[in-house]
Amino acid sequence: MLLPQINQPDQIKSLSVEELSSLAAEIRQFLIEKLSVTGGHLASNLGVVELTLALHYCYDSPRDKFIFDVGHQAYVHKMLTGRMDQFDTLRKYKGLCGFVKRNESDHDVWEAGHSSTSLSAAMGMALARDFKGEKNKVVAIIGDGALTGGMAFEALNHIGHEQKDLMVILNDNEMSIAPNVGAMHNYLSKIRSDRHYLRAKDELEILLKKIPAIGGMLAKTGSRLKDSLKYMMVPGVLFEELGLTYLGPVDGHDTQKLIETFKQADNVRGPVFVHVLTTKGKGYKPAEADSYKWHGISPYKIESGKELKSVGNPMYTDVFGKTLIELGEQDPRIVAVTPAMSKGSGLIPFSEVFPSRMIDVGIAEQHAATMCAALAMEGMKPVFAVYSTFMQRAYDQIVHDICRHNANVMFAIDRAGFVGADGETHQGVFDVAFMRHLPNMVMMMPKDENELRHMMKTALDYDDGPIAYRYPRINGLGVPLDEKLVPIPIGKWETVREGEGYAVLASGPMVQVALEAAEQLKREGINLRVVNARFLKPLDEDMLVELANSHTNMIVLEEVCEAGSLGSAVLEFYASKHIFDTRVSLMGVPDRFIEHGSVKEQREETGLTAEGVCAELKKLMSLHTFGIGKTGFSS
Amino acid sequence: MLLPQINQPDQIKSLSVEELSSLAAEIRQFLIEKLSVTGGHLASNLGVVELTLALHYCYDSPRDKFIFDVGHQAYVHKMLTGRMDQFDTLRKYKGLCGFVKRNESDHDVWEAGHSSTSLSAAMGMALARDFKGEKNKVVAIIGDGALTGGMAFEALNHIGHEQKDLMVILNDNEMSIAPNVGAMHNYLSKIRSDRHYLRAKDELEILLKKIPAIGGMLAKTGSRLKDSLKYMMVPGVLFEELGLTYLGPVDGHDTQKLIETFKQADNVRGPVFVHVLTTKGKGYKPAEADSYKWHGISPYKIESGKELKSVGNPMYTDVFGKTLIELGEQDPRIVAVTPAMSKGSGLIPFSEVFPSRMIDVGIAEQHAATMCAALAMEGMKPVFAVYSTFMQRAYDQIVHDICRHNANVMFAIDRAGFVGADGETHQGVFDVAFMRHLPNMVMMMPKDENELRHMMKTALDYDDGPIAYRYPRINGLGVPLDEKLVPIPIGKWETVREGEGYAVLASGPMVQVALEAAEQLKREGINLRVVNARFLKPLDEDMLVELANSHTNMIVLEEVCEAGSLGSAVLEFYASKHIFDTRVSLMGVPDRFIEHGSVKEQREETGLTAEGVCAELKKLMSLHTFGIGKTGFSS
Repeated sequence: MLLPQINQPDQIKSLSVEELSSLAAEIRQFLIEKLSVTGGHLASNLGVVELTLALHYCYDSPRDKFIFDVGHQAYVHKMLTGRMDQFDTLRKYKGLCGFVKRNESDHDVWEAGHSSTSLSAAMGMALARDFKGEKNKVVAIIGDGALTGGMAFEALNHIGHEQKDLMVILNDNEMSIAPNVGAMHNYLSKIRSDRHYLRAKDELEILLKKIPAIGGMLAKTGSRLKDSLKYMMVPGVLFEELGLTYLGPVDGHDTQKLIETFKQADNVRGPVFVHVLTTKGKGYKPAEADSYKWHGISPYKIESGKELKSVGNPMYTDVFGKTLIELGEQDPRIVAVTPAMSKGSGLIPFSEVFPSRMIDVGIAEQHAATMCAALAMEGMKPVFAVYSTFMQRAYDQIVHDICRHNANVMFAIDRAGFVGADGETHQGVFDVAFMRHLPNMVMMMPKDENELRHMMKTALDYDDGPIAYRYPRINGLGVPLDEKLVPIPIGKWETVREGEGYAVLASGPMVQVALEAAEQLKREGINLRVVNARFLKPLDEDMLVELANSHTNMIVLEEVCEAGSLGSAVLEFYASKHIFDTRVSLMGVPDRFIEHGSVKEQREETGLTAEGVCAELKKLMSLHTFGIGKTGFSS
Repeated sequence: MLLPQINQPDQIKSLSVEELSSLAAEIRQFLIEKLSVTGGHLASNLGVVELTLALHYCYDSPRDKFIFDVGHQAYVHKMLTGRMDQFDTLRKYKGLCGFVKRNESDHDVWEAGHSSTSLSAAMGMALARDFKGEKNKVVAIIGDGALTGGMAFEALNHIGHEQKDLMVILNDNEMSIAPNVGAMHNYLSKIRSDRHYLRAKDELEILLKKIPAIGGMLAKTGSRLKDSLKYMMVPGVLFEELGLTYLGPVDGHDTQKLIETFKQADNVRGPVFVHVLTTKGKGYKPAEADSYKWHGISPYKIESGKELKSVGNPMYTDVFGKTLIELGEQDPRIVAVTPAMSKGSGLIPFSEVFPSRMIDVGIAEQHAATMCAALAMEGMKPVFAVYSTFMQRAYDQIVHDICRHNANVMFAIDRAGFVGADGETHQGVFDVAFMRHLPNMVMMMPKDENELRHMMKTALDYDDGPIAYRYPRINGLGVPLDEKLVPIPIGKWETVREGEGYAVLASGPMVQVALEAAEQLKREGINLRVVNARFLKPLDEDMLVELANSHTNMIVLEEVCEAGSLGSAVLEFYASKHIFDTRVSLMGVPDRFIEHGSVKEQREETGLTAEGVCAELKKLMSLHTFGIGKTGFSS
């Protein structure tokens, strides 16, 4: 066993290529065993074992900078940099992060959870290195899926132009998270499958020797014919045209070849593009057979590959997917648009029923949003199904193309609120704050999975502009699902529990938390009203006036950043109406990034629990006896 | 004269090619004359006269959809679609919009002010057409600058994959707004300058006939060699590789050739990419000679091309540019980063003094932001100079790469607040709302151009994370500029006018508006306090508590969307401290898009004037006599 002796990357430099191969096998065994207990991103990490070994063998981290795009394929890197003993805590609260994490190690130089940032990061680090007159290498490792993200192209365009020394490694496994789509994918496939290119090169050389006329022509026609010959010999002409030197494709599971290619790359001046072919899930049969399923995985039985998922109530995501089929059957204008998340967004069943009405654009949230605007303006009813955190990429398109055109785009915002183990890069806690201030926007969040269905109908029937429903990454409450879908009046909230003197205005799953708090407080004789503030915009102004007139003290409770979200909207409403004597207290996510853990732990950390509500209410009560004009200041 | 008879595009279809050429000359004369009075985007419109004529000649707008990227090059289109008589009101309040505008004409099918959206729009419209079983053409007209925007690549990737019938016209004038940078630009230049490609094609054909061996080789080596031959004949192999049929390059001022090329394109199935070469400013010598300057122009003398700019106080933009040179001399870590706006952002002087420390990435806000994060993490002090409205494109990168890494990036946010004639696509009214809720962010806005200088020093000295200063697109107040720059304590506001009972907390140029209101109110015996709320985040909590304790009634006055901005932050602060009896009223931009006009007109429309402040204050006064607990509700 070599693995137990490795706790820093220097130690692998003295190994032979054979020993590296043995080490690779041990690493795979380690990952398969550990992740069977913790879950995690298994397939992508099994795919980069040799690649990561070769990088640490050839270069000197952390002096040389390894920038992992997305950052969930850095488990092997973590193992080689002294964190092997922490894998039992992988993705757990206060445990090892599932992504690259700077505060874990000096070897982690760039954090990411969203795709396509690595090339920009590499460019910044290469520029800084040259400004400082330093000599280190900068290496970005990017998947073929991430390469479709527009910002990766923006970076390539700049990299090719500036001609700084840096290395882009394309980790081409023919998959992003979903099976890849797009012209770039087709292009890479062509390179990948072209087993003849070397033969063509040989034959060309023979031809050149045989036919003197060609030599003459080369001289006469200048660079175009020479470029053309290059095209014949170099499969990656597209990258060459953008100014990068293309090397590859190279077998990403052949450590020797990888090392040779890196040595070759080191002799290139300017940016170099190394095309590495890997197999997702390599070395573990179930993952190789279905790397899509095994991208991110729950704990599983190693022998069978069977997931040990606990059976629970249906996820909101699944209710969304099922309901979209029902609506799609009623209304042929509905098309579903996903940025490479058809599985994650629960759209596989829809795509099976309506294959032509399912549009997967690849990792391209900006294009998806703007395309939805155009679809809507031409009479379709597009559903942009997107995770809250990834919708951040489309902010400008939502402002400029959807809201400004007042286009009838429906947003199905999944993973709204805390997301658990994916942690701070993925929390869906900003969307209310970044969409609420946009003109023409309507936003909803359901208290349970049944209400989600009615909201989807509400959105479909709404023809006055963009409308969004957001829902969390958790199981539903297990409530019965109504067959008949009835639209909810726009801007109407719902009192789910009567009470007096005090009310909680809660959003989404926080309604349930408020109800629990109400039950606890009932024992103490407090009769808390609970309002399902199901519209985040527009507000239920009638109810807010009624609450003010009845001198009700309010807590606004929401699982999003406190600044700028629903609580803020309630305060603004009262200010705009010159209603100054209401008592509104805000409970939301505080002004910092919340790390990985379970949703329960994340709620506890931020006080978004029944106990938290009770505590806040008691603070409010201690400030004054009931009534207007008897408040105390606490400052 | 043909022009006076044209009021709908059908009328040009009966013209001969010679008549079209005469019409083109008349159109140019019209534009040169009209814009000499109104100002506007002259150079780009002079460049697309023949192109626009050829499109309307060959296709049937509005059944066929013309999608103009950015949309400021649609003047000719507006002239041909019945709006010639409105050019005296171009870019004026309630007048003809400088961009494509749907409510002006059925021929305007897609609005844009931000670049790179046209390909996504075209894809959406082509998909919708096919879903509906209709037959119209969809044509996107995109500049070479806009092609560097990441979302354009995302769209190309999808277009090449889906193979829908649509036409992409690349209007290649070798310029975005700034001289173009980037590998794509270099690639296009190569095509543009390659006058030999046709000759190479001829010679190749001769070669093929002469040498039977090649025919045999073609059969043996399969597609690669054939592709290689295609490469020799087709200059746009990069676009061909992405799945589009490339046609061109074609002279964009040769109407006959354009018409022929469109006919050729109509015979192509699937997406076709037409590369059109145009000259910005064509037909007007001063604009041809300096199309950069003539991109967007003030009124000018036709004969001399001299701008009739009124001389005023220095613009904030210029003070920024000048001060950055001073700071750059003191601190070699400073680098300026611009997304193709070096002139607009006032960075030309800096680039002349420090050419290597000026990084123009092209139209690529996402890449720019993330690259800045990496530069900062490696010890540089990047200044991301960007217009407020274009920063919207980088929202996710600001969240995920800058704020989450807590990187020391300085944001110089120009065009903050109303922007005047560019109108609703360019208003800088959302940035406070979309940045304030992000952890680690510090945001400032100066009351005058001298304070801007001190804020720039404040930002440079600040080493604890991202920090932004935002400033408007107007002239400064003409105040003296201090030589010595002194950092402002983070989060400290400034009382610029003492008063009692009532205070305005104002941001940026609104401080001046508040001071004017105070002068007016003084005559009525009201002593208004005016606070320069120069930090939008963090707030001056001490001052807010002091204001509350002194029972001061407050108006928060800001030229940004009211929802989620500074006023909202003040309300949240009081709620968080359980200070419930303050009276805070909000004045900001209401929840709708504000159209073009002068900044003065935009402020009047939204009530952000001294008169507006006086009126709001009187409303507050009428609600109650001074004191706690005596408010009246108005609901």
